[in-house]
Amino acid sequence: MTQECDTLLLAARLPDGRQDMRIAIRQGRIAAILAPGDTAPPAAQILDLQGDLLLPGLVDAHLHLDKTLFGLPWLPHAAGPDRMSRIETDRRLLPALPLSAAERGSALLRRCIAHGTAHIRSHADITPAFGLTMLEGVLAAKQAHAGAATVQVVAFPQAGVMRAPGTAELLEAAIRAGADLLGGLDPCEVDRDPKGQFDAIFGIAARHGVGLDIHLHEAGELGLFSLQEFCARVRAHGMQGRATISHGFCLGTLPESKQKAAAALMAEAGVALATHGAGGATLPPLSLLREAGVTVLCGHDNLRDTWGPYGTGDMLERAAIVGWRADWRSDPQLHALFGMVSTEGARVLGLAEHGIAPGLPASFFTLPAENIPEAIAQHPPRRLVFFAGRLVARDGVFLG
Amino acid sequence: MTQECDTLLLAARLPDGRQDMRIAIRQGRIAAILAPGDTAPPAAQILDLQGDLLLPGLVDAHLHLDKTLFGLPWLPHAAGPDRMSRIETDRRLLPALPLSAAERGSALLRRCIAHGTAHIRSHADITPAFGLTMLEGVLAAKQAHAGAATVQVVAFPQAGVMRAPGTAELLEAAIRAGADLLGGLDPCEVDRDPKGQFDAIFGIAARHGVGLDIHLHEAGELGLFSLQEFCARVRAHGMQGRATISHGFCLGTLPESKQKAAAALMAEAGVALATHGAGGATLPPLSLLREAGVTVLCGHDNLRDTWGPYGTGDMLERAAIVGWRADWRSDPQLHALFGMVSTEGARVLGLAEHGIAPGLPASFFTLPAENIPEAIAQHPPRRLVFFAGRLVARDGVFLG
Repeated sequence: MTQECDTLLLAARLPDGRQDMRIAIRQGRIAAILAPGDTAPPAAQILDLQGDLLLPGLVDAHLHLDKTLFGLPWLPHAAGPDRMSRIETDRRLLPALPLSAAERGSALLRRCIAHGTAHIRSHADITPAFGLTMLEGVLAAKQAHAGAATVQVVAFPQAGVMRAPGTAELLEAAIRAGADLLGGLDPCEVDRDPKGQFDAIFGIAARHGVGLDIHLHEAGELGLFSLQEFCARVRAHGMQGRATISHGFCLGTLPESKQKAAAALMAEAGVALATHGAGGATLPPLSLLREAGVTVLCGHDNLRDTWGPYGTGDMLERAAIVGWRADWRSDPQLHALFGMVSTEGARVLGLAEHGIAPGLPASFFTLPAENIPEAIAQHPPRRLVFFAGRLVARDGVFLG
Repeated sequence: MTQECDTLLLAARLPDGRQDMRIAIRQGRIAAILAPGDTAPPAAQILDLQGDLLLPGLVDAHLHLDKTLFGLPWLPHAAGPDRMSRIETDRRLLPALPLSAAERGSALLRRCIAHGTAHIRSHADITPAFGLTMLEGVLAAKQAHAGAATVQVVAFPQAGVMRAPGTAELLEAAIRAGADLLGGLDPCEVDRDPKGQFDAIFGIAARHGVGLDIHLHEAGELGLFSLQEFCARVRAHGMQGRATISHGFCLGTLPESKQKAAAALMAEAGVALATHGAGGATLPPLSLLREAGVTVLCGHDNLRDTWGPYGTGDMLERAAIVGWRADWRSDPQLHALFGMVSTEGARVLGLAEHGIAPGLPASFFTLPAENIPEAIAQHPPRRLVFFAGRLVARDGVFLG
């Protein structure tokens, strides 16, 4: 091949173990992967990776771009200890901040991109108090960074659906305004009306042909009841493969027989689980779920925001935390973690083109690691981040 | 003050919020902390911190320098799923590695130092198979890095005491060879003879006047029984303030009334708890323990070693993981986490001089953070690390 390429990367290490490879990028895509001895095309730009590992862009499957406090000076955590007090704190605090959701979300987005994240599913609060303002902020942040990452937005009824009249209409408006999926929230604990909430959100989802991703924090048998109801409706509506339960903390506390039954239900209904590692809550049984055929995704959830101070934007760090809690130590388990934050995340997010192969978009990052297990376990700093052929971050700094 | 100093640091931010401060270092100690307007002494070397936060050297209170695989190419996890299989894997694997314990431990030590850790308590396996070789390796690594960190070594009977005849004598020899403290391990589960193990290790500790730091992984009531026995003997031997229980996973699963009784017992006996964040096990109730007066320490435990692939050497990252699991979100809680990996760790390790004040050793690090809560929650990369006045690491690279 002699056609000039835009960028030629030298001395790349690939996840399959091949070393000293060259990657030719043309028109935003991987034009060729060249082994030592292969003839390289002329290139407008040449970058030497010096043996760094090259991995496909990471997927953060659960984020709240509208709640983050990044971009602002440090703000001490102001909410009370329970979920309802945090919802109330959001209502008071978020509109009063000196930066808009678009500005704060953009600051967080740039941070995630600099850590190698290429694809994000972000929730945006849709409540009577906020109307569509948080969604508009997230969509603006998404638009402003369209050249550096993809963002999928979930219209999220953070204040409930049935207990917050007007929310169902707002959710429908949110889909029309550009939200990609519909959310839900603890239909028993928050709404005290699971039938009401599910009727509403499945109705909207069906009318607009969008997928669902609900927050389910409910514990034990209560959470299991909601999970069963959700899965039954996903099957009834033919939404297999387009529905996700985020958190699913209840799965962590059930006896194993019920965990297995719930996992089978989710697998049959094609319902994925998105975990952020569970923080102070119980981690769902990830091995059992995966063995049952449930796709498990991973996201940051709250990231230095009104709900909590933690989070760095590094999905490899988060994957390591999840694996450490799940007691996954072997190389196959570390590869499974990488799948959760890359291939499997991309599949559930509906990204047809993801990976390192000729013809695919040149969306990847480099880091000084020997292989995927080390990249997860020690999550070394990212060196170069490319999105669709463009260098978008270098040494932790977003380049625009 | 006009006496020349060795190093003058400009534009430091201090943990108490003061900004644009200058730090004069002379003969390994902080000679002065100067506010804007104060006259600075002449200096042989001037470094501009550009507003970075300056924090006292971190304490890793539980590490296994002899088990690490750092320094070697990636080695997939080889042990089985339970503790006994890991002990057996150590016996086979560690002596066969191409790098010695001194070399591997040194590689890990340099990594910890580059992350701002100044003080480490490391265990060293003392078993019939290893004799004192692991201890000698850890002592050699300690010696080689005496100018960059302090290392306290625990003679740790990883294969048990009663079930591994000859271990008691080896432990005594380890103390004579330079170990600082005596360890112990699951006296019921591993030795099936709690009285035997405790008689042995308390006897040696008393004869040599050294402190104790035991591994206690035992769950539920069994762990509680061992904890009660340990605390009773600490009081009987007058070892209050010189005894630590590492892990104490049992504390996480007990009903609250028994957690409180156990915490009161530990507080009365002056027994500290060292946690690594509990990984796949249950996290002890850190708030309850601290409220009862128990000093809680934090360490990495296994760090890319024969027991598991995770760990980076960054105690701020580890503190964030512990706080996230403990559901600590407020600024006072984030300050408590910092205490666990600095002041309180230093106190239990018996380090009389620790902190940022004139006269104290110049052992500290800098990072781009606004305050301690941000330093924990986002654990940004370390820029400069000083130990006793010497610049020992810069931008993550150990300088020697």
